[in-house]
Amino acid sequence: MVKVSVFGKGNMGSAIGQNFADAGNQTEYITKDSTVETLGDIVVLAVPYPAVHDILEKYRSALAGKIIIDITNPVDFNTFDDLVVPADSSAAAEIAAKLPDSKVVKAFNTTFAATLATKKVADQHQTTVLIASDDASAKKQVTDALNGCGLKIIDAGSLKRARELEAMGFLQISLASAEKISWTGGFGIFN
Amino acid sequence: MVKVSVFGKGNMGSAIGQNFADAGNQTEYITKDSTVETLGDIVVLAVPYPAVHDILEKYRSALAGKIIIDITNPVDFNTFDDLVVPADSSAAAEIAAKLPDSKVVKAFNTTFAATLATKKVADQHQTTVLIASDDASAKKQVTDALNGCGLKIIDAGSLKRARELEAMGFLQISLASAEKISWTGGFGIFN
Repeated sequence: MVKVSVFGKGNMGSAIGQNFADAGNQTEYITKDSTVETLGDIVVLAVPYPAVHDILEKYRSALAGKIIIDITNPVDFNTFDDLVVPADSSAAAEIAAKLPDSKVVKAFNTTFAATLATKKVADQHQTTVLIASDDASAKKQVTDALNGCGLKIIDAGSLKRARELEAMGFLQISLASAEKISWTGGFGIFN
Repeated sequence: MVKVSVFGKGNMGSAIGQNFADAGNQTEYITKDSTVETLGDIVVLAVPYPAVHDILEKYRSALAGKIIIDITNPVDFNTFDDLVVPADSSAAAEIAAKLPDSKVVKAFNTTFAATLATKKVADQHQTTVLIASDDASAKKQVTDALNGCGLKIIDAGSLKRARELEAMGFLQISLASAEKISWTGGFGIFN
């Protein structure tokens, strides 16, 4: 059992926090109005990408040494045609650069909130979370902490793969926005 | 019914050609040893990305006015950590820049050959082909030509989305290479 601090209690934060709770961990939510002194072993940044940077600023020292899960899809919602991060980077890489003393993990950005809450894509196929990090131990701790929650976890490699994960997240959002798929469906992963 | 010219008769070319044939079209295969004078209405470049450019050179005039389907995943197979195209571009964009008189469509790069041959991902879930192009009429002609073949086709937007499709293709290849998924599985798409 670990303590998990989830920033944000929207659809994504709630569903992710619930999964950690379902696996037997202690979950706390931190919202704009709350302030905490210390953070859990695992910290989930379940806020829109533009809101991440204020959190990194405010909690810089509390985040040191922690596992930080970045779930963001840094879509440019003005154009809906690009990401706001440089093409050769990713939100996760930008966050990692700002948190040299934390272990940054990319996860949960290729799964819609509904598929995390129900543990199934389109009520049919077990939801798989792709996870990437340069810290193998952090990936293992997150995977272990989620053991038994009902989601499948697949190691997608180093944090560099966040670029592809964010491209996939963006594509999935753009398909749902264009009503080509629903927000309860999307990408299911098959062995 | 249209005539479809498929460059390459490997696993991908064969499976794609078979799908066009299954939908009632005339399919021909063009390999290194064969030379043709005229090409079909739809041309599929089912060769590795480095081999595309010789074809574009050799068949430049025959390709004019045609619908060109780029299926490539331009993975750098030396590092297996990057694509060989610039981060803000895509194989499809590079090909389109070389073929200003053709209608370039990105498709079939997010589906493993086995899932095109069996029409199912992991023998379980109907295979979906994501298709992107700046030419709406070309997308419609490809989609219509495949009607009845057993694959589902989803319009993923403009050719700019090829960047995300290639990221997804790369990620899928990297997961299979790392034995996290099998080459008969991968990404299934749910409504």
